[in-house]
Amino acid sequence: MEFKARLLEIEAGGNLIVIIGARDAERLGVISSDRVRLETAGSEVVAILNIASEFPQGVLGIYEEVRQRLGLREEDTVQVRPAERPESLRFIREKIMGGKLTARKMELIVEDVVERHLSDIELAAFVTALQVHGLSMEEAESLSRAMVKAGRTIGFNRTPILDKHSIGGVPGDKTTLLVVPIIAAAGYTIPKSSSRAITSPAGTADRMEALCPVDLRIEEIIEVVEKVNACVVWGGALDLAPADDLFIRVEYPLSIDPLLLPSIMSKKKAMGSSHIVVDIPTGRGAKINTLDQAQQLARNFIELGARLDMHVECARAEGEQPIGWAIGPNLEAREALETLMGGGPPDLIDKATSLAGILLEMVGEENGKERALELLSSGKAEEKLRQIIEAQGGDPEVKPEDLAVGDRWIDVRAERSGRVLWINNRAIAQIARTAGTPSDKGAGLLLRAKMGDEVSEGDVLFRIYAESAQRLDRAAAQAEELAPVAVGSRFGERMLIKQVRGALQKGPAFILER
Amino acid sequence: MEFKARLLEIEAGGNLIVIIGARDAERLGVISSDRVRLETAGSEVVAILNIASEFPQGVLGIYEEVRQRLGLREEDTVQVRPAERPESLRFIREKIMGGKLTARKMELIVEDVVERHLSDIELAAFVTALQVHGLSMEEAESLSRAMVKAGRTIGFNRTPILDKHSIGGVPGDKTTLLVVPIIAAAGYTIPKSSSRAITSPAGTADRMEALCPVDLRIEEIIEVVEKVNACVVWGGALDLAPADDLFIRVEYPLSIDPLLLPSIMSKKKAMGSSHIVVDIPTGRGAKINTLDQAQQLARNFIELGARLDMHVECARAEGEQPIGWAIGPNLEAREALETLMGGGPPDLIDKATSLAGILLEMVGEENGKERALELLSSGKAEEKLRQIIEAQGGDPEVKPEDLAVGDRWIDVRAERSGRVLWINNRAIAQIARTAGTPSDKGAGLLLRAKMGDEVSEGDVLFRIYAESAQRLDRAAAQAEELAPVAVGSRFGERMLIKQVRGALQKGPAFILER
Repeated sequence: MEFKARLLEIEAGGNLIVIIGARDAERLGVISSDRVRLETAGSEVVAILNIASEFPQGVLGIYEEVRQRLGLREEDTVQVRPAERPESLRFIREKIMGGKLTARKMELIVEDVVERHLSDIELAAFVTALQVHGLSMEEAESLSRAMVKAGRTIGFNRTPILDKHSIGGVPGDKTTLLVVPIIAAAGYTIPKSSSRAITSPAGTADRMEALCPVDLRIEEIIEVVEKVNACVVWGGALDLAPADDLFIRVEYPLSIDPLLLPSIMSKKKAMGSSHIVVDIPTGRGAKINTLDQAQQLARNFIELGARLDMHVECARAEGEQPIGWAIGPNLEAREALETLMGGGPPDLIDKATSLAGILLEMVGEENGKERALELLSSGKAEEKLRQIIEAQGGDPEVKPEDLAVGDRWIDVRAERSGRVLWINNRAIAQIARTAGTPSDKGAGLLLRAKMGDEVSEGDVLFRIYAESAQRLDRAAAQAEELAPVAVGSRFGERMLIKQVRGALQKGPAFILER
Repeated sequence: MEFKARLLEIEAGGNLIVIIGARDAERLGVISSDRVRLETAGSEVVAILNIASEFPQGVLGIYEEVRQRLGLREEDTVQVRPAERPESLRFIREKIMGGKLTARKMELIVEDVVERHLSDIELAAFVTALQVHGLSMEEAESLSRAMVKAGRTIGFNRTPILDKHSIGGVPGDKTTLLVVPIIAAAGYTIPKSSSRAITSPAGTADRMEALCPVDLRIEEIIEVVEKVNACVVWGGALDLAPADDLFIRVEYPLSIDPLLLPSIMSKKKAMGSSHIVVDIPTGRGAKINTLDQAQQLARNFIELGARLDMHVECARAEGEQPIGWAIGPNLEAREALETLMGGGPPDLIDKATSLAGILLEMVGEENGKERALELLSSGKAEEKLRQIIEAQGGDPEVKPEDLAVGDRWIDVRAERSGRVLWINNRAIAQIARTAGTPSDKGAGLLLRAKMGDEVSEGDVLFRIYAESAQRLDRAAAQAEELAPVAVGSRFGERMLIKQVRGALQKGPAFILER
């Protein structure tokens, strides 16, 4: 059937979608979610059909994605015919029914995901089925390989390629900004691609961006790594394992994450990594709550790594409270820089040198942690970070005080004397977000007390920074409501934890960052 | 944050969706699928957020559904604030994780489905989780009740209210057009709401529409039933258990149907039915393939019925081949009318009187089938159908030959002599659809041989009717390819069944009609 194109001038979230009226659909013998083949003079594409109850007869509504594929203009004539549904839908159905998918079927699904041939409904069903039935190690491997194959890969012409990954969930974790220069200062190659915050106060890319540009193209990354052995860049636009971003779109509203392992490992594989340390923050308020769960996840990372020819070791790290004192892009970059310059909080130093030490021992060094501490205290790691900053286009002479923090702040004080019994990671993250992070670079929190510290009534527990009075007020109100730092005289006396958790359930229950 | 409304002038498929640009989203601290509260001078609504990478700053894209709710005009100012996600998302997640949902949680989910507060992603996850984990009988009950509660109900002020339902899947099944007048002629009330074809050649509403209008409003239905004890109307616009249509949208592309029981039973409950016979066509090529499966399904219908205070009995009926000779709206209406007038095929008569007989015995009559046969052969059922036709606004004097069939036809003949070994329901349905059903009322098939019949080479197996030469040609070509009526000298010799099934997998694998 022949239609006239009507350009809708909006995106359909990436999918190839067109719209026709209900009567035209009846005539074509198609219903919503069916596929149609669109043909113009020069090109053709299969799109997903949506039906509008009131839409002019003979008119085809064209979302931006389809317009671009076909190079359409308003009023262009388009031939529309019913098309078969993607074969991958059958395999998704197989997974729903409890089957195990072969490598080939996984590949076809991922291809269709990346080509945007699957609707949100179909993608959601696949991810839900993966969540319910789980992935066998074979499926995790084939899914990872399929995700690598469906995107770009980077070749550095070097070996080994070291890497570090955290499954996230702990605010203030600027460890990467120390591990990368330590490893590079030791003479190894560590090209780090990282993410921006989606639901957290700051991602590693946000922290690094306080120091230098992170939006590098692949060619620029290769150049930087050739020069200084390392980089810390934003991986989001590099088209490495791009299926992941599409899966995340579906996982996020459902607060499920069945693709954690393949997502992470496919990105590492696409980056060419050979030796990876995976940080698994563990504890109440972290993503992984018990040591047993952490152990199981670690084993899975190691096995999947081996299947993909990557040497993986894991670190179960303390995840009950923020790392260091600072939360927020500029505050964290400042703290990382101070730590490289000889200051810094002890937990950050310990975590960074422990992880760097594991990596160093993986590639054959002895006494890895000591070596890492030495590279840190000698200033060599600082020197290396400054080289990276320069190579990525930043100012190598940057000083901690150059990193501006919000000019408005408020102190939250202890209402009683005692010890800090616990710090609620999620509440800390929420307050920082309310204060403006990650888009307000200078917003965030600076903790003055950590778990176990003694405080007196009236002592400052933390300071909230913001760039606007309105945001500061809202963050302060939220801090009062959530009371993220609990002070008491002994464990067990503060039963309020239940109430706080109830309140928090209303907020985002899911930390998206991997 | 304040936005200017930009009316997109298209529907979002029913959901409440708005669009903002990526930068505005970052500023608001929201991502795709998050909820936002929209406020105008007079009203407010919570909508699902979509993000477009390129969209003018400060502009809010408004789909029709949101425009209508808020009564918006182009350039109107709208306040946009992040909102909490619906509580029902937590319960959907519980179901994904394998939990059993309480009646209250089911109710909240269904409310949010009907209020269009859940995105396609979230709905698909729910339906997939139901498919994978299954529904307990408690959950089926609470889901049915929730679906009834979320829509309109009809009260006829009579008792008992009889009803008949087929789970479908067999082409040419015009049984309802006989059962309803038989039951009403016996003095009982049977208000039948039925569906139009979605993927089949004709639904009961399409068949009845050949005889009289079926798009009645609830008040009109009540009036008709008051007058003649019965009706056969289209149920699609009555808002009875409206959640079902929304679930179907998601089930269709996935070819799954976890809601079969609650869908059917909630519509019956909303109609006020007290005694229902459910027809379960069984056999190769039907929805239910084995007698065991049919038995299990029947038990579930009966139990769910009892929980909802409805007396249900089930009939496992032959479902291996079409019912009667005719397939297609007008052809089927004609065959039904002929059967009521004393002619008609024996399988249709047997099926209709068997089902009517069960219903009659359910309300206390003896020898139900004999009584049904008598009402049929005496012409009382015919008289009743004509009363119903008149009450619904049709011509009570309608003759079979008044129902026009396509003026183009072609005969498909046996290529060899032998017996009809099998008839492929799905292929028959596909050919009829290709010939133009259900939108071309006169299109369809007229079978000349059924399973077990002896045919000689060159005998007509079936005739295809169409309203256009092009459709007739395409249907004829498809008939040749699919060879839906297999003739052979003994069972087992025709191994071609495998090839035909392979070809069919490319078509719609799923019969949507319930």
